[in-house]
Amino acid sequence: MKVAVMGYGTVGSGVVEVIETHSGIIPKKIGGEALEVARILDLRDFPNDPHKDLFTKDFNDILNDPEIKIVAETMGGVNPAFDFTMKLLKSGKSVVTSNKELVAQKGPELLQAAEESGTNYLIEASVGGGIPIIRPLTQCLAANHIEGIAGILNGTTNFILTMMIEKGMSFEDALKIAQEKGYAEKDPTADVEGHDACRKVCILASLAFGKHVYPSQVATEGISNITLEDVSYINSANGVIKLLGQIKYINDDQIAAFVSPAVVYNGSQLASVKDVFNAVLVRGDAVGDVCFYGPGAGKLPTASAVVADIIDCAKHTGRKKIFGWGAGEEDYVVDYKSAIKMPFYVRTKATCNQVNAAFSDVKFLSRKGQPSDEVAFITDIMTENELTERLSSLEVINIIKVTNY
Amino acid sequence: MKVAVMGYGTVGSGVVEVIETHSGIIPKKIGGEALEVARILDLRDFPNDPHKDLFTKDFNDILNDPEIKIVAETMGGVNPAFDFTMKLLKSGKSVVTSNKELVAQKGPELLQAAEESGTNYLIEASVGGGIPIIRPLTQCLAANHIEGIAGILNGTTNFILTMMIEKGMSFEDALKIAQEKGYAEKDPTADVEGHDACRKVCILASLAFGKHVYPSQVATEGISNITLEDVSYINSANGVIKLLGQIKYINDDQIAAFVSPAVVYNGSQLASVKDVFNAVLVRGDAVGDVCFYGPGAGKLPTASAVVADIIDCAKHTGRKKIFGWGAGEEDYVVDYKSAIKMPFYVRTKATCNQVNAAFSDVKFLSRKGQPSDEVAFITDIMTENELTERLSSLEVINIIKVTNY
Repeated sequence: MKVAVMGYGTVGSGVVEVIETHSGIIPKKIGGEALEVARILDLRDFPNDPHKDLFTKDFNDILNDPEIKIVAETMGGVNPAFDFTMKLLKSGKSVVTSNKELVAQKGPELLQAAEESGTNYLIEASVGGGIPIIRPLTQCLAANHIEGIAGILNGTTNFILTMMIEKGMSFEDALKIAQEKGYAEKDPTADVEGHDACRKVCILASLAFGKHVYPSQVATEGISNITLEDVSYINSANGVIKLLGQIKYINDDQIAAFVSPAVVYNGSQLASVKDVFNAVLVRGDAVGDVCFYGPGAGKLPTASAVVADIIDCAKHTGRKKIFGWGAGEEDYVVDYKSAIKMPFYVRTKATCNQVNAAFSDVKFLSRKGQPSDEVAFITDIMTENELTERLSSLEVINIIKVTNY
Repeated sequence: MKVAVMGYGTVGSGVVEVIETHSGIIPKKIGGEALEVARILDLRDFPNDPHKDLFTKDFNDILNDPEIKIVAETMGGVNPAFDFTMKLLKSGKSVVTSNKELVAQKGPELLQAAEESGTNYLIEASVGGGIPIIRPLTQCLAANHIEGIAGILNGTTNFILTMMIEKGMSFEDALKIAQEKGYAEKDPTADVEGHDACRKVCILASLAFGKHVYPSQVATEGISNITLEDVSYINSANGVIKLLGQIKYINDDQIAAFVSPAVVYNGSQLASVKDVFNAVLVRGDAVGDVCFYGPGAGKLPTASAVVADIIDCAKHTGRKKIFGWGAGEEDYVVDYKSAIKMPFYVRTKATCNQVNAAFSDVKFLSRKGQPSDEVAFITDIMTENELTERLSSLEVINIIKVTNY
């Protein structure tokens, strides 16, 4: 069975490698037939690549090849990936993707096109890299009302936070090491400021609750304000700071979705997720908490998820009904600051008396070298708006949400 | 769509409850139709149950009802569940099950019957209770060569070990509390001696490698020999003792599969799995390690997995091709004692000099109150047969495998 790969970067070249190195086992899973990479689309030249005869710079070579029934889109970005994917789906080819930006921005249109043409648009690799999450969430947990989801969805920031927590490294030093190791880009903004995690939150929320969530609807805060002082205070409370994407069901017409640093207490499955690993915790009303852990990025892990989707397309003729979701709505994602109650970690230039005057019930924290004019504490549960009001007379250094996962 | 439930115990009554309490969301997942429990098979009387009109003691009332297309088998045990399931599959009805004993003993025959009649025999709830594992393993990780699987597959023993590790409770006291909480049966043998975990190992091995593994092929050792002294020594090595089911690929014609207590070092995802929770770690050649965590038993978690399988049957007309495996073979599961190398924890009545004479490279451990004639250590990697040989001249108190997960 002939397949094409669009985008020969890290993931795309991984897809070709996984197909080739698993030529022994893949045919057993699709009724005896082998997968053959017939075309690779990339605008760059790869003169020394062993697949050089397969390269094309012309998308029409794939679109118009009737033998190619499945295409892996590993280009990234919205354009031209959206245009290409739409044309492929409309022409009757199935598309599998690792492109979280495209799914988060244009998921409903593409799923709709697949529905109409009886093809498949599969997206397992777009969230959590190699971690199985799409099928578990939509199929295995189908008999649950999902109450909430919390995920460590970005390996770069989790690596930086792990270095800060375990090695006492500053944010800047940890970022530098992440860049040296190739975990962070030269411009690390998309990772460090939470934009990458935000896209994955959009996809998870869309899958879990059936309406599309756009990145612009998700309040997103990164980790660049986290200091070793915060790490130290939270360690004294037996917790760690993680960059979490959180989604909470409110009612059938409203959810909350936000990305931010969050305090996770040790003992939570999310607390033990270190380095570049990712995890997604799903809370269902019947099952309770289930958690999926693994490599959230990387060439072969992500490629293996893309190829699993290719295998699924190849195994079934016609459309699969794994999942799908509808269009988004403007007021669907509410302002979590007024809708969601939780405890908060607060670091202030204030005295305990001033804090006690503003909050009835707090837990004070301590750290080595704590200055006499600095107080850190964890509040009772309240909305962020209520917190802001209570803090109005205090000089705040930092605020971090505390999660209940 | 009419369904029947066979066996109205903990899981079966949970299935009825989950279907009823999720009547709002289930139709959205199966094209608008509602699920209706039309019949419940149980030999007992439930005079005060609100479903009393649905009960029957006659299996033929389900078998001969043409409107019932899907049956949940939550009876447990091999007989009469095997006979009933076989007749249902041959009559064109799909069956979903939580019955690990039946799947471990008779999986291939039942899957074959489903294949021949174009029905489905789905088994998500038979491993890991509510944890999604069947689809992730067979679909999401399809592009991986599976190198090994290690799972905490029994909640009762994990609860007992957690009490021993965290509260310093003896095995006997922890077992008593587990019984009081309803986590352990009055006769706890099936849990404590590893038989329950063994059945789940059989199912996971069959799924991962395509040939059936029978419980009799899996060397199985329980936790009743674990003492607080062992817990203490292993704590000093920064590890914990877990009851693990392990499966290791050797070649296409041979695997190893065994259940035993095992040392897991802190930092592993398996080390942080506490109380009655379960987890399955899968190591694939492309994805690396992924881990699935959640409640491995319990009424609603397990029932939610059964109902997810019902939904999957209801969503698709005709047979789904999620998974399947072939018959077992006598020499397929090798003797791990000669085939698998690993480190071992050993506690002896011996001196360090005697130990050093028998082993070239060991790490000595210590514990509070350690008697002068007791030595505990962790060996280099070797087969268990080699270990036994080296220990021949020493007085051994206990031996525990050390895992590399």
